[in-house]
Amino acid sequence: MKLKGFQKLTLTDQALQLWFSALQIGRPKMTKISLQVALGRVLAEDIVAHEDLPRFDKSAMDGYALKSADTVSASQSKPAIFQLTENQEIEGKQAKQIWTGNPIPKGADAVVMLENTRKDEGKLEVWSQLALNANVSKTGEDINKGNVVAKAGARLNPYHIGLAAALGYSQLKVAQKPKIGILATGNELAEVGTKLSGNLIYDSNKIMIANVCKELGAETTDYGIAKDNVDEIADKIKEALKTQDAVITTGGTSVGGLDLVPDAINKLGKPGVIVHGVALRPAMPTSVGMLEGKPVLILSGNPVASIIGFEVFGRPMVCTLLGMSKTEPRPMLKASLSRNVASVLGRKTYVRVKVSLRGGEFIAEPVSAKGSGLISTMTQSNGFVAVPENREGISEGETVIVHMFGSLEDVD
Amino acid sequence: MKLKGFQKLTLTDQALQLWFSALQIGRPKMTKISLQVALGRVLAEDIVAHEDLPRFDKSAMDGYALKSADTVSASQSKPAIFQLTENQEIEGKQAKQIWTGNPIPKGADAVVMLENTRKDEGKLEVWSQLALNANVSKTGEDINKGNVVAKAGARLNPYHIGLAAALGYSQLKVAQKPKIGILATGNELAEVGTKLSGNLIYDSNKIMIANVCKELGAETTDYGIAKDNVDEIADKIKEALKTQDAVITTGGTSVGGLDLVPDAINKLGKPGVIVHGVALRPAMPTSVGMLEGKPVLILSGNPVASIIGFEVFGRPMVCTLLGMSKTEPRPMLKASLSRNVASVLGRKTYVRVKVSLRGGEFIAEPVSAKGSGLISTMTQSNGFVAVPENREGISEGETVIVHMFGSLEDVD
Repeated sequence: MKLKGFQKLTLTDQALQLWFSALQIGRPKMTKISLQVALGRVLAEDIVAHEDLPRFDKSAMDGYALKSADTVSASQSKPAIFQLTENQEIEGKQAKQIWTGNPIPKGADAVVMLENTRKDEGKLEVWSQLALNANVSKTGEDINKGNVVAKAGARLNPYHIGLAAALGYSQLKVAQKPKIGILATGNELAEVGTKLSGNLIYDSNKIMIANVCKELGAETTDYGIAKDNVDEIADKIKEALKTQDAVITTGGTSVGGLDLVPDAINKLGKPGVIVHGVALRPAMPTSVGMLEGKPVLILSGNPVASIIGFEVFGRPMVCTLLGMSKTEPRPMLKASLSRNVASVLGRKTYVRVKVSLRGGEFIAEPVSAKGSGLISTMTQSNGFVAVPENREGISEGETVIVHMFGSLEDVD
Repeated sequence: MKLKGFQKLTLTDQALQLWFSALQIGRPKMTKISLQVALGRVLAEDIVAHEDLPRFDKSAMDGYALKSADTVSASQSKPAIFQLTENQEIEGKQAKQIWTGNPIPKGADAVVMLENTRKDEGKLEVWSQLALNANVSKTGEDINKGNVVAKAGARLNPYHIGLAAALGYSQLKVAQKPKIGILATGNELAEVGTKLSGNLIYDSNKIMIANVCKELGAETTDYGIAKDNVDEIADKIKEALKTQDAVITTGGTSVGGLDLVPDAINKLGKPGVIVHGVALRPAMPTSVGMLEGKPVLILSGNPVASIIGFEVFGRPMVCTLLGMSKTEPRPMLKASLSRNVASVLGRKTYVRVKVSLRGGEFIAEPVSAKGSGLISTMTQSNGFVAVPENREGISEGETVIVHMFGSLEDVD
């Protein structure tokens, strides 16, 4: 009986490096889309301001526009007196009522706040001395023409979109959504929605991996379930490679001591499997490869191991396909570990934790050390702690960085 | 000239309380959707396991199934010897090869790892003593039939969806997306995509607020731009109330000293405006009301003030409409403030910061105290710090809780 490959595990960072230096993924294809549907998409080119914002000097306050020089030494006890005018242009010792956002009339160079004035029979008393440009939003104060306001590779949030709207953009160029084919393997698997018989179990990996891809902005295609058969697996991967930018498989590594998916991939071409087995817990069988220049990610059939394998390898893969220069980090925080966690020296270990905010402190509670493969540990937790290879466990009370994938429990 | 309402600002928490106790929002309508499109939706009822997971005792290892009692005192120097069998059921001193995930054969109660065995001419040497159920995933070990695996009000992440799939759910009951009508007001505004003339500016608030609603899982309808005219504003709000679950307006508060939107709302019915002006910076004009039992949120026309007003009032509104029992928190972290920030005693102040991870420490850099209304301060930052009413600024080096809305800058 053979137990191939896994005798020699590759360190996680080294595996990533080997994979990405083989892949050489170029810039993604771009597509022009309406601002209305741009949320969460990744910019394919910088957004450049093609005009100043504001486009004209405007008032930052409700008040009166006037010449600042006319207010020298003004105070409540010794107000400066102005004539009110409705003219487009003001002259010396004239003031014009103005509201927040209104353009500053010609001749004026400051705005006095309502609170510092008193109106009296067509005249205006001004009680304070104003500096040049006081309460004026100057042209270009927010953004200057030519400024880069968002960089290629940025994921568009509502505020980028608002800024693009303010600048008059009704369309933006974004990266096309990477297409990712997902294949599950395993004789024991049945599709959700079918009736279970015998010792079958429902496949949960495909839909889970599809959704983490979707969260990152990829488009997935379901290639179904392949039996534990190298030819069937190879056929389906080949089919996926015709249209997809990347392929992800789950299961079929170390099945009955056989490496079905790695064998199928190596059969399909060069370089095939690049790293086979990673010093990563609980995702040791994770392997990575390349076919037709496209990344192939081989995940464990164990649901939690497939999640961790995706987290470590799939996430940078999708970010790179989207044209990001760095892997987009999950939200992070520092928390105090509520009890010891174990890890093995030489293996990077992903511990699931539930972080809560208690009395102003972030506490990370490790979720169920036993049953590391259990999918419920993912829904009971909201973050990962990555224990590095040079650590043998982490002690209660230590501060750890948590990568959050779920909502914080706010106990306050 | 009148300057209504704002003389008496309501404290933020009090305003929220007044609003929500008037609103009495009930459970949302539910809809049954396919698991395929469930990501990010909010559960309308608990997901209950209708069977055990795993559904049968299965092996947690590659190895051999056997009776644990037959391994008493076994060691490498004194192995226990087993007959290998292919039968469905094993008997005393028999062992059957088994792979991870396979059902435990009848008669067996433990699995010995491959590493602790040696095969020799149809016989198996077992080198370790096994406890009852060693390396066996027992029926229901992950989830017991009847367990609640996700609660009504939870937002579905990929792992909830995976767990639902593993349990055989192909559909889930989720809250219908709340419908939110959004109206901008202001003579100075033009729609994006049109040509600007004179002193007009592009409306950026509607699309920004629509997108924060969308992020939370609401569906928005754009009711366009109303001129600064009470009747026109009232007509559009009335129109929106016909089909929408809530209405959000931007601008038209304290315009030229007039409270156009509040006046329009009060004209439309009771109770109309509930709170007019909040001790919140930079979103002081924010007001809240109710018409036909539906929430109406009145935001400032200033883009940043409208964002903060939405953050404080719109976010809990949408979460409540979705049936969540608490407002979903943004990702949070604690960071050290890189310089002093100012705030006014008695006002809750939202400071925008850019958080980066430098040498393992989270540093929050306040973004541009000047120009608090500038939309670019939102795209240059990634989080908010809420300075409470009882503080007069925060000093450099203090640790603050940051509510993150953008990606962390990882400088390491």
